Amino acid sequence: MGRDLTALFDPGSVAVVGASDDPAKYGHAVASQALRADGRRPVHLVNRRGGTVLGRPAAPSLAAIGEPVELVVISVPGDGFEAAVEDALACGAKAIVGITAGFAEAGPAGLARQRAVVARVQEAGAVLVGPNCLGIADNTTELYLASDRFAPGGVALLSQSGNLALELQLRGAPHGLGFSRFVSLGNQADVTLVDLVEDCARHEPTTAIAVYAEDFGDGRAFARAAAAAGKPVVLLTAGRGSASARSAQSHTGALTTSADVVAAACRDAGVELVRTPREMTVVLAAVSARSGPRTQGDRTAVFTDGGGHGAIAADAAEDAGLDVPELGAATQERLRTVLWRQSAVGNPVDLAGMGEQQPLSYADTVAELLAADEVDAVLMTGYFGGYAASDGGLGGGPAGGSVLAEGETRAAEKIVTHLAATPKPLVVQSMYPQSPSCRVLSEAGIPVFAATEDAARALSAMTGRAAGGAPAVLAVPALPAAAGPLRDAGYHGVRGLLGAAGVPFPAAREITDEAGLLAAAAEFDGPYVLKALHLLHKSDAGGVALRLADRDALLAAYRDMHARLGAPAYSVEAMADLSDGIELIVGVNRDPRFGPVAMVGLGGVLTETLRDVAFALAPVPARRAEELLRGLRTAALLAGVRGRPTVDVAAAAAVIERITAVAAAHPEIAELEVNPLLVRPGGALALDARAVLG
Amino acid sequence: MGRDLTALFDPGSVAVVGASDDPAKYGHAVASQALRADGRRPVHLVNRRGGTVLGRPAAPSLAAIGEPVELVVISVPGDGFEAAVEDALACGAKAIVGITAGFAEAGPAGLARQRAVVARVQEAGAVLVGPNCLGIADNTTELYLASDRFAPGGVALLSQSGNLALELQLRGAPHGLGFSRFVSLGNQADVTLVDLVEDCARHEPTTAIAVYAEDFGDGRAFARAAAAAGKPVVLLTAGRGSASARSAQSHTGALTTSADVVAAACRDAGVELVRTPREMTVVLAAVSARSGPRTQGDRTAVFTDGGGHGAIAADAAEDAGLDVPELGAATQERLRTVLWRQSAVGNPVDLAGMGEQQPLSYADTVAELLAADEVDAVLMTGYFGGYAASDGGLGGGPAGGSVLAEGETRAAEKIVTHLAATPKPLVVQSMYPQSPSCRVLSEAGIPVFAATEDAARALSAMTGRAAGGAPAVLAVPALPAAAGPLRDAGYHGVRGLLGAAGVPFPAAREITDEAGLLAAAAEFDGPYVLKALHLLHKSDAGGVALRLADRDALLAAYRDMHARLGAPAYSVEAMADLSDGIELIVGVNRDPRFGPVAMVGLGGVLTETLRDVAFALAPVPARRAEELLRGLRTAALLAGVRGRPTVDVAAAAAVIERITAVAAAHPEIAELEVNPLLVRPGGALALDARAVLG
Repeated sequence: MGRDLTALFDPGSVAVVGASDDPAKYGHAVASQALRADGRRPVHLVNRRGGTVLGRPAAPSLAAIGEPVELVVISVPGDGFEAAVEDALACGAKAIVGITAGFAEAGPAGLARQRAVVARVQEAGAVLVGPNCLGIADNTTELYLASDRFAPGGVALLSQSGNLALELQLRGAPHGLGFSRFVSLGNQADVTLVDLVEDCARHEPTTAIAVYAEDFGDGRAFARAAAAAGKPVVLLTAGRGSASARSAQSHTGALTTSADVVAAACRDAGVELVRTPREMTVVLAAVSARSGPRTQGDRTAVFTDGGGHGAIAADAAEDAGLDVPELGAATQERLRTVLWRQSAVGNPVDLAGMGEQQPLSYADTVAELLAADEVDAVLMTGYFGGYAASDGGLGGGPAGGSVLAEGETRAAEKIVTHLAATPKPLVVQSMYPQSPSCRVLSEAGIPVFAATEDAARALSAMTGRAAGGAPAVLAVPALPAAAGPLRDAGYHGVRGLLGAAGVPFPAAREITDEAGLLAAAAEFDGPYVLKALHLLHKSDAGGVALRLADRDALLAAYRDMHARLGAPAYSVEAMADLSDGIELIVGVNRDPRFGPVAMVGLGGVLTETLRDVAFALAPVPARRAEELLRGLRTAALLAGVRGRPTVDVAAAAAVIERITAVAAAHPEIAELEVNPLLVRPGGALALDARAVLG
Repeated sequence: MGRDLTALFDPGSVAVVGASDDPAKYGHAVASQALRADGRRPVHLVNRRGGTVLGRPAAPSLAAIGEPVELVVISVPGDGFEAAVEDALACGAKAIVGITAGFAEAGPAGLARQRAVVARVQEAGAVLVGPNCLGIADNTTELYLASDRFAPGGVALLSQSGNLALELQLRGAPHGLGFSRFVSLGNQADVTLVDLVEDCARHEPTTAIAVYAEDFGDGRAFARAAAAAGKPVVLLTAGRGSASARSAQSHTGALTTSADVVAAACRDAGVELVRTPREMTVVLAAVSARSGPRTQGDRTAVFTDGGGHGAIAADAAEDAGLDVPELGAATQERLRTVLWRQSAVGNPVDLAGMGEQQPLSYADTVAELLAADEVDAVLMTGYFGGYAASDGGLGGGPAGGSVLAEGETRAAEKIVTHLAATPKPLVVQSMYPQSPSCRVLSEAGIPVFAATEDAARALSAMTGRAAGGAPAVLAVPALPAAAGPLRDAGYHGVRGLLGAAGVPFPAAREITDEAGLLAAAAEFDGPYVLKALHLLHKSDAGGVALRLADRDALLAAYRDMHARLGAPAYSVEAMADLSDGIELIVGVNRDPRFGPVAMVGLGGVLTETLRDVAFALAPVPARRAEELLRGLRTAALLAGVRGRPTVDVAAAAAVIERITAVAAAHPEIAELEVNPLLVRPGGALALDARAVLG
């Protein structure tokens, strides 16, 4: 059920320790904000010099207040922090917001101090946000304990950067975006990002959760909380490029997670991952739109009043991952009945001048597009709004302008009516987003943007994974029955563990001498493979012999290999038919933040040179594994090229589910790899496996 | 030298035919604009009903004006266009702007009418813009013949879409962008995009040329004109996605050019290719910036006052193709002398709070970064501007605010001074781009943006190919001596043509019988390759035999192949050593717009499944060919992976130069392909070739 953060977001009383009249001090800003809601709950200002602060008496200490305080904000110089925490707990504080810096972020000594403080707070049954944070705010309870003022609204903003939070606030205003809560995450010493996502998921006035984080803490728990939130979660983070990754590494030490893993976790958890504050604002505007439920399909009709805008928007839509298919004949017929002969009806749909003569053609066209079965969403782009804009628009004087303006505004009203009757989304790009007609649309909850790429990105957020459906991370396949921890990470130990979980391997025997070799050869037919095992210094060359046609060839290979390598054991295996198969690689690594993460890709030299691999949180359900394989750049190889047969991707996906489930069920395994996993027209077969114990 | 367009852009007199008092008519808007500069030159309004238009007497016909008119705008209903053109020419018009629609864009009959009009205009020694256009404007000569008003400035805007031109005009204003000229391209029946680019290149007040085009006309000539322009050319176009390509195809028939070819032509010609009006505005703001010459290097220092903004900007810079390397030890040392201990100096460089205490640290840091040898450009991002912003910024009351504001503005002034001493560019992202401090920067010609991705894109335009250096399209390799047109497009004919141009092939003889086969085998050693030639229905299977060890194997293969295929001729060739080589594919196709376009890529199954190919205008200089090869996703294969040797990419590039030069020198060749081109550690060898005559 998550932690109870009531004392944090809706305390009965508040004290600001370090409140100050000096505007250069952060305690001044927090105290000023705190007093804005003085009527809602008692707000005490504490300054060790007493006197007055912001025109009211300040207590020289928390104890001097003379009554319990539920939430205490501490903004004092570094070495005073522990004492202030003790005073707060003594005053009965159930929540502390630690502004003071100089803890984990300052090195090992700071980390030790931080741990001691957290232990004290938890012992007392209280919660701590920060330290090294910029405060919190909750517009739904009139709690203002950060320097910034956030316009009220539905977005809960959880941020590790004060400046980025400020930028998001500034950017949100023109889109009508407001904030239910703001939490500066700070060092997440006690209350973590995960706690806050869980609490904001329960927080009814919050309609979307926006996160800027560099350190995910328990990333797997973050993904789980986001997937279970039941409301959109949008994540802004850095680390894709070499410079930001280098910078993060210097901050957080070794515990960095590759951008691939973060992206995979977001995809699996249905989190919208964004790259910049601007993109975050666009996505928040989209997921906060009241224009009907969002849909899963992405077949988009692009509708314009000018060919150039239509073509540019069609490209932008495809760049954003949307599909812009040609409309069906029936839809084109229906469009022809409402449009001019020179209008284009294929998709993009182009009024071609009709809007200027008959503004209601905008609404008629939107109605037809929303009614079409092959259309999931509509992107309207171009001049709409210009006829009613205050400058009169293209070529319009006052008279013509006003007739056109009225028609355009009526068209906007009709569009709103049409949209109310369908769950399909409409997003608008207009050169005149602030025009009266566009305001009719945006006030009805239809997102309107000035930039084409923003409209396309918004629509992709309204039609994408975050728009609904059970995120993959929730659909966890059953783990294999507990076989006990893997102790023997040797080849046959790993093979045994995977085999018991249903991963198919060719017949094989571990042998240590010629007698064993011959006995193995008698058990199954050739051709054979011989592998040297348990070599301390594993040799790339000469430890594997393939295509040994019969017993004699096997024996000869054994003698040669044993003379060269002197391995303590060998594996004799039935050789699989490689002629019509594709070799895959399946690996699971344990990420320090996100736990077991699976990687699948084409095996062999392609893996190395193309890095054509895909990631997902493990265990990976078969359906998702198939998506990963079909999304590879080299996926065409699976479908058979140059006369090769189509291979059994479903069988490979089922095996990937089993392999990744084994890895997830065995926390003692740091790395598990099946390479190659041979997939043929008739099934999939693991040809080699290795594990590293953590 | 290009066409003389003086009568178009600086006419001695102007007439608007179809001038109207009806605001719904386009002739109303054009006439209203035209009259704005009535004092500069005579402006005559023509309306067949005579009377008054816009409060002044209108002539019932051009002839009724009673004096010659140098430029005539024709905005009359479709069937009156030809007569108006005749009247204009009779009046001595040297330039005509055809607004009237219904010509080539309306089908074959319209195209025929259009051709007849153009013939008449050219016969009379005049020029025609349009028809089907929205007019022209030249702010440098006070010529206003389009419905829109363009703020004056340095950008010449050549657009095939009126609405997109309007959007670019609206978007330009906040960036201080103005326009020298606007031309609505219309059908380009006489005056083409190329004519206009050439004229704008010569037009001194024009500092950058912005183009929106769907139809490039002679694309090769456009690329040449852009490369020779000596000023930035920025191109907005659609057609990357399937929908916009489908839409373009329905407009222009078969003459569509793939987005790959357009992108290749832009790269070769140094044209900045953009995807949206917004991106075009950002790039125009960047290339129009007065903050010093642009540079070629892209090693970027990211400098911030908040870690979050630094990390996001570093990712955005790398997304935009910039390099964000770690700063060298000496630079880090110097930065340490001006920054706090907790400031980050690696890159991103982060003031970490110092700016709020010592605003001049912004300027000191910029100075150190500009002075660093390993830094080509600086991207500053975050809060800068906030201290001087009217809302006082983060945590600042009036007192602190104003001290900080003064310091910040002084820092901005110092940054301007530092930048003046270096050719390196600085681009700024600020949450407060309109603040007094940011205005100091932007008024000094330093681009300031609100969005991180815009700042990064702008910097890439200031450091990229468009920033200088001879574009590849100008560095045309010498074509091979004219060998006469290729008449025999058979295998040995093509081989002979390429061989004469210096493309190396293995020894080979064309033979038609066993005697010839044996004679060939006596001329060079095996192993041999045997290929069947001149088959009408070329067979994929069985027409090539490889690895024929000796004369006997060759003979046996010949007998088998001849019995099966009965080809009229065969090629006996020395078999190349494939063991340590990589197979490339090199093709040249003749694009209807851009002429010969080369494609290079990895050969074999990879080409088909990965589409890992690169394009460039042919002929391709060897240096550029090497860049193309090294830019392939699979380029790592060329450097040797899994113990394979590094192959001789320079030799392959030299052969690519020769192949593409042959194709370019032989306009009769529609397609030329060498596949495979084997590249080995010791050189490159063409193993097969084919040509299709056009």
